[in-house]
Amino acid sequence: MLQEDVKRELRSIVGNEDYKDDMQSLVTHSYDGTPMLQSLPDGVIYPADTREVSEVMKVLNRYRIPLISRGSGTNLCGGTVPVQGGVVMVMHRMNRILEVDLENLTATVQPGLNTKQFITHVEGLGLFYPPDPGSMAVSTIGGNIAECSGGLRGLKYGTTKDYVIGLEAVLASGEIIRTGGKLMKDVAGYDLTKLLVGSEGTLAVITEATLKLIPPPRYKKTMLAMYKDIYGAARTVSKIIENRIIPATLEFLDNPTIRVVDDFAKLGLPRDMEAILLIEQDGDMESVERDIASIEMICHSENAAQVSVAESAEEALKLMTARRSAFTALARLRPTTILEDATVPRSKIADMVLEINRIAQKFQVQICTFGHAGDGNLHPTATTDARDQEEIHRVEAAFEEIFEAAIKLGGTITGEHGVGLVKAPFLEWKVGSAGIEMMKAIKQGFDPLNLLNPGKMFAKESRKRVVIDRG
Amino acid sequence: MLQEDVKRELRSIVGNEDYKDDMQSLVTHSYDGTPMLQSLPDGVIYPADTREVSEVMKVLNRYRIPLISRGSGTNLCGGTVPVQGGVVMVMHRMNRILEVDLENLTATVQPGLNTKQFITHVEGLGLFYPPDPGSMAVSTIGGNIAECSGGLRGLKYGTTKDYVIGLEAVLASGEIIRTGGKLMKDVAGYDLTKLLVGSEGTLAVITEATLKLIPPPRYKKTMLAMYKDIYGAARTVSKIIENRIIPATLEFLDNPTIRVVDDFAKLGLPRDMEAILLIEQDGDMESVERDIASIEMICHSENAAQVSVAESAEEALKLMTARRSAFTALARLRPTTILEDATVPRSKIADMVLEINRIAQKFQVQICTFGHAGDGNLHPTATTDARDQEEIHRVEAAFEEIFEAAIKLGGTITGEHGVGLVKAPFLEWKVGSAGIEMMKAIKQGFDPLNLLNPGKMFAKESRKRVVIDRG
Repeated sequence: MLQEDVKRELRSIVGNEDYKDDMQSLVTHSYDGTPMLQSLPDGVIYPADTREVSEVMKVLNRYRIPLISRGSGTNLCGGTVPVQGGVVMVMHRMNRILEVDLENLTATVQPGLNTKQFITHVEGLGLFYPPDPGSMAVSTIGGNIAECSGGLRGLKYGTTKDYVIGLEAVLASGEIIRTGGKLMKDVAGYDLTKLLVGSEGTLAVITEATLKLIPPPRYKKTMLAMYKDIYGAARTVSKIIENRIIPATLEFLDNPTIRVVDDFAKLGLPRDMEAILLIEQDGDMESVERDIASIEMICHSENAAQVSVAESAEEALKLMTARRSAFTALARLRPTTILEDATVPRSKIADMVLEINRIAQKFQVQICTFGHAGDGNLHPTATTDARDQEEIHRVEAAFEEIFEAAIKLGGTITGEHGVGLVKAPFLEWKVGSAGIEMMKAIKQGFDPLNLLNPGKMFAKESRKRVVIDRG
Repeated sequence: MLQEDVKRELRSIVGNEDYKDDMQSLVTHSYDGTPMLQSLPDGVIYPADTREVSEVMKVLNRYRIPLISRGSGTNLCGGTVPVQGGVVMVMHRMNRILEVDLENLTATVQPGLNTKQFITHVEGLGLFYPPDPGSMAVSTIGGNIAECSGGLRGLKYGTTKDYVIGLEAVLASGEIIRTGGKLMKDVAGYDLTKLLVGSEGTLAVITEATLKLIPPPRYKKTMLAMYKDIYGAARTVSKIIENRIIPATLEFLDNPTIRVVDDFAKLGLPRDMEAILLIEQDGDMESVERDIASIEMICHSENAAQVSVAESAEEALKLMTARRSAFTALARLRPTTILEDATVPRSKIADMVLEINRIAQKFQVQICTFGHAGDGNLHPTATTDARDQEEIHRVEAAFEEIFEAAIKLGGTITGEHGVGLVKAPFLEWKVGSAGIEMMKAIKQGFDPLNLLNPGKMFAKESRKRVVIDRG
């Protein structure tokens, strides 16, 4: 709990109603989308505008109290768990679309804006904002920026980073900074915009963002290819890219995921397949038809057992919705679902799936794998039970070995979920000690008192790279 | 000149031949593509590989000697002038394409590789590397990364930043760092890759880069639209974008530039036009034909005096080459050519051209304007004479006012040339004092002894924003 005079100051900024520290508010903001992590904050605050964010930050800075900014807390890395207490700042009141500029094809929005709502709004104006994280129905643009969210369309269209061209943010001092603008090109100094994207709330509180919009594709086509041999699916992914085709979406589901998704979405998927690829191409009709025809040929040449192109937009939407339901469907299996995002060069997808299966077997845990195959961004997902400590240890040991395998294949510990708490002990594996040192220097420069989302990104100790079988 | 024992150490690393401090070598590396700036280094060194770069850096760090890494020195911001002496490190021996990975569509290259040669090489493999700075026939990939180079294809395809996905670099300590990789998605920690791109040699020496390649467009079409009214041209630019068309290239040339380019390239351009737009669209035939037809209609609706579509690839190439010759052509007019890159939101092109013309008139200087209209990235170019101090003062005062006008229109002081020496006094206008502070904190973290390209990016004093008419 904060001292009374701090609370008084905070309430004088946001109003009595918008600072809370009743137990219900504290518990509600003690966790996020990541399983098995919980820590109570001292208070929860709901600022109405940038000035309030700045004033709150100044007070917290003066009293050396941590600030954890968050949107809907859908992240999967423990990114918004207040591990060192402090004040959780919920951005939901700052949820407006400030402008859509049709001449410059930009939108300026507040961080608490819901992602899906924003995507739908710009679609209504005949424009396109591609980043579509799995959580988009609930997530906020500010949270997407903090984590540099990806999604199903990342392969062709890139991730959140590629669409953020300007930011307003509040620094740890309470000062307000503006980076970039409605500019397609800007090399005035170091790129603070791209640095803040994906900085997980550890460098500044984002209070406004200018986003690039693009013309929407005119036409799209969706298809499914099913394989009895998982490597046929993986080779198909490589061959598509090698053939200079970049589909909008190129998703992979392994057999356990297929069965679970089918139970959930009732699509009548063949349950004996080892892998399914869900492929979507968009663009002009001519190029889409050509690409889909080429992809069909590649699928057949890799011995796909069945290849089918969606007959209608409804059917295509049904398939995409089914894929989007994978996490939800898996979550029904057992009490605890741990979804990871080890990522490898896209040519290494088959090797990575092999490794995941070998490791799951070794530790006797259930891991289903699905994800963005075209990006090399897989989601090995363990279904387990947090109450079974012994099993959880085996799951953790398995993931540790999966991260190590990803690094060995030239990959990374996280493709789109972020480091947060969960990956912090593994960050050094990817970026090396010199990388950690430079990142810490940046953190130190921005936030010398370590008030912004402390305890995230950097672990007290890096995990040793020798995996100890704790099972 | 360096002490004898330092030179001995440096020569023992790179060999006798590859450290030079004869007057010819020093003078040759005392300037770059930027007019009127010159400062002698103490020595020039040519490393053969990353290990040598690291060893050299360690020696220089020990003796507190500045290091200025450079490629071909084509930059236009004084970015590689050794203003505080020290050792210029020329990357030309590290000029190999290490790998083109056809499965992952990436290339791994050394920094001294020539840009044009790289583009041509990957084109031969049926791939596409879009960044095409005006200097690409001479420039290096390392230099392009240091400055985040743009080019004519930036509008549709983005700039260097959008294609660098992994780096190897040597830090001021001599330590070697690796960022990113052959990964389309990677959120492991702060994005050091994008931070190093455009950091102008002030944070690290880039020794290797992994670049993203894309499938090339199958078809392209080039057209010219000529206007008696400059605002008709500007409105055309806005209308094209508003109509959800993003051309590959959308270039603007004003009347003085048209005349000079025509004298140089002998295209028979109509010399009485106030503005020409050079437009190229690429992609599939269907979409290119549709876009070009729409653009033609827009041009006519904005009272273009003449609209013509190139009949052949040769004719299109001739037009693009003429545009690319603008700088060279202007440089023939008078002894000194100062080319700037004030950039505004693309909807503000007309306002910016108006401002440039007003300011040129006010200071009685000759400024021709051309550039990447679709990006809002204009190149107001003064033709002057460095020996005429009085005129040069007027030119400088005019540019100061042009930068101020760009900022007022929501723009930036530099769209693609970088800050270097030339824009350093103006950086604060764009990023504010808090922005400067954060950038300095990053610099301090990476290079606490200020050895890497010192004197760049940050000015001792910011220019006051009140422009004094020194004419």
